[in-house]
Amino acid sequence: MKFTRFMVQSSVSKGVLTEENTIREIKGDIFGDWDYTGQTFSGTDIKLLAPLSPNQIIGIGANYVSKTDELPNELPEIPVFFFKPTSSVIGPDEDIIIPGNIEQVKFESELAIIIGKEAKNVPEEEVLDYVFGYTVGNDVTAPQFFHEAGHWTIGKSFDTFTPLGPVIETELDPFNVTVEARLNHEVKQNSATQLMIIPIRKMISYLTGVMTLKPGDVILTGSPVGAEFVGAGDVIECEIKEIGKLRNTFAAAREHIQA
Amino acid sequence: MKFTRFMVQSSVSKGVLTEENTIREIKGDIFGDWDYTGQTFSGTDIKLLAPLSPNQIIGIGANYVSKTDELPNELPEIPVFFFKPTSSVIGPDEDIIIPGNIEQVKFESELAIIIGKEAKNVPEEEVLDYVFGYTVGNDVTAPQFFHEAGHWTIGKSFDTFTPLGPVIETELDPFNVTVEARLNHEVKQNSATQLMIIPIRKMISYLTGVMTLKPGDVILTGSPVGAEFVGAGDVIECEIKEIGKLRNTFAAAREHIQA
Repeated sequence: MKFTRFMVQSSVSKGVLTEENTIREIKGDIFGDWDYTGQTFSGTDIKLLAPLSPNQIIGIGANYVSKTDELPNELPEIPVFFFKPTSSVIGPDEDIIIPGNIEQVKFESELAIIIGKEAKNVPEEEVLDYVFGYTVGNDVTAPQFFHEAGHWTIGKSFDTFTPLGPVIETELDPFNVTVEARLNHEVKQNSATQLMIIPIRKMISYLTGVMTLKPGDVILTGSPVGAEFVGAGDVIECEIKEIGKLRNTFAAAREHIQA
Repeated sequence: MKFTRFMVQSSVSKGVLTEENTIREIKGDIFGDWDYTGQTFSGTDIKLLAPLSPNQIIGIGANYVSKTDELPNELPEIPVFFFKPTSSVIGPDEDIIIPGNIEQVKFESELAIIIGKEAKNVPEEEVLDYVFGYTVGNDVTAPQFFHEAGHWTIGKSFDTFTPLGPVIETELDPFNVTVEARLNHEVKQNSATQLMIIPIRKMISYLTGVMTLKPGDVILTGSPVGAEFVGAGDVIECEIKEIGKLRNTFAAAREHIQA
């Protein structure tokens, strides 16, 4: 099932995308009780938004190799996790704003996991029971704002730096998909999720050993090899075929930041 | 005005603490419209909770000197900011759980700022117009889980690692208070907020240049010199006299984490 959030006549609605490419509006909580309203919209009536308002966004750093034989025998004891602010989320077709005092930022196409149930101390083999579904994320990054002592927070926190969408697919096999990015129609990233260094089950299980994950938490599972610096006017399409295409254009800020 | 959140007969309420130490219950949104319900409770009727459910928690690293003459002439271009998960919040008198595979963690007493209005690109001189109030925070930290490449996320993210309380004081002068911590009744931290390296106005203005701050965002403004490792059974009291005392006891985890 493909869940969407969308704007219709300046109000925000939720819906399910059908195979005929129409949207059946729903009401209620996608993580709990919901129901169809009976209203149906076509793609031309509405503007897709990020498919959820995340509770929190957790990312993992440097999590792909380029070939299976590069996968390490031993995993790092402490993976590199980071948070992105929920204020950085935008939806499909919205502009990614490059901060005023820099010229370029990096795109990072990723499989994004959406947690559906409160999860604490969950063993690897049960982790998928707590996953509601999957979307595509773009973990936009301005490494110019990484702190020299290693902290990534500011460089990943600017408004518009976390495009999500187009839908939440609940029936995905996350171990059998490919994460792609096309920059101005040219393929730049194209890796199977099998190339993750810290695989999905271990990643989520580890996190639940630290913190209670909640419905609406989004985990960005890391970006394949191939992310690049881009500038104003560039168009990025992040895609996982089974979920859909997340297309955004980079734009220059109108104002310089006050830093 | 001192806002509280509390548990009474197993339901969560909000209220205003009066000078007579009673709580006048309120309903509504403390950042918007609210009203008194007419109900009043005494301290013995209720159990205080963290005074809000934060939207997000942002911390700043290493932000105090020990004496005024140690304040640097030039501020760092990129301050060390980090996020803590909202799942790490607890209230007064709750136990701080030490993760199962370590023996000790650090307390860090801090002035916590609560944002009341959406704030983006706010100049330093207007920043306080966006502040709703102030509480005391304890930025509990397990440096054993800091990543060797400098990432603090995991070491600051465990459940129970962000005690907040006892109240949100809306009438504080944040430039004229002292942040204290007493470990088992012995003073360990005791610094005026004047000793902050990146002062409050600059800190918030910088953040709003990066991201849109929202009502309910909490900014932990850094901890005075004197934080220490503590273990199970230790009692920490973080205090800013004009706000109140935030008392928590450290306890050992019953289970080892799955990391």
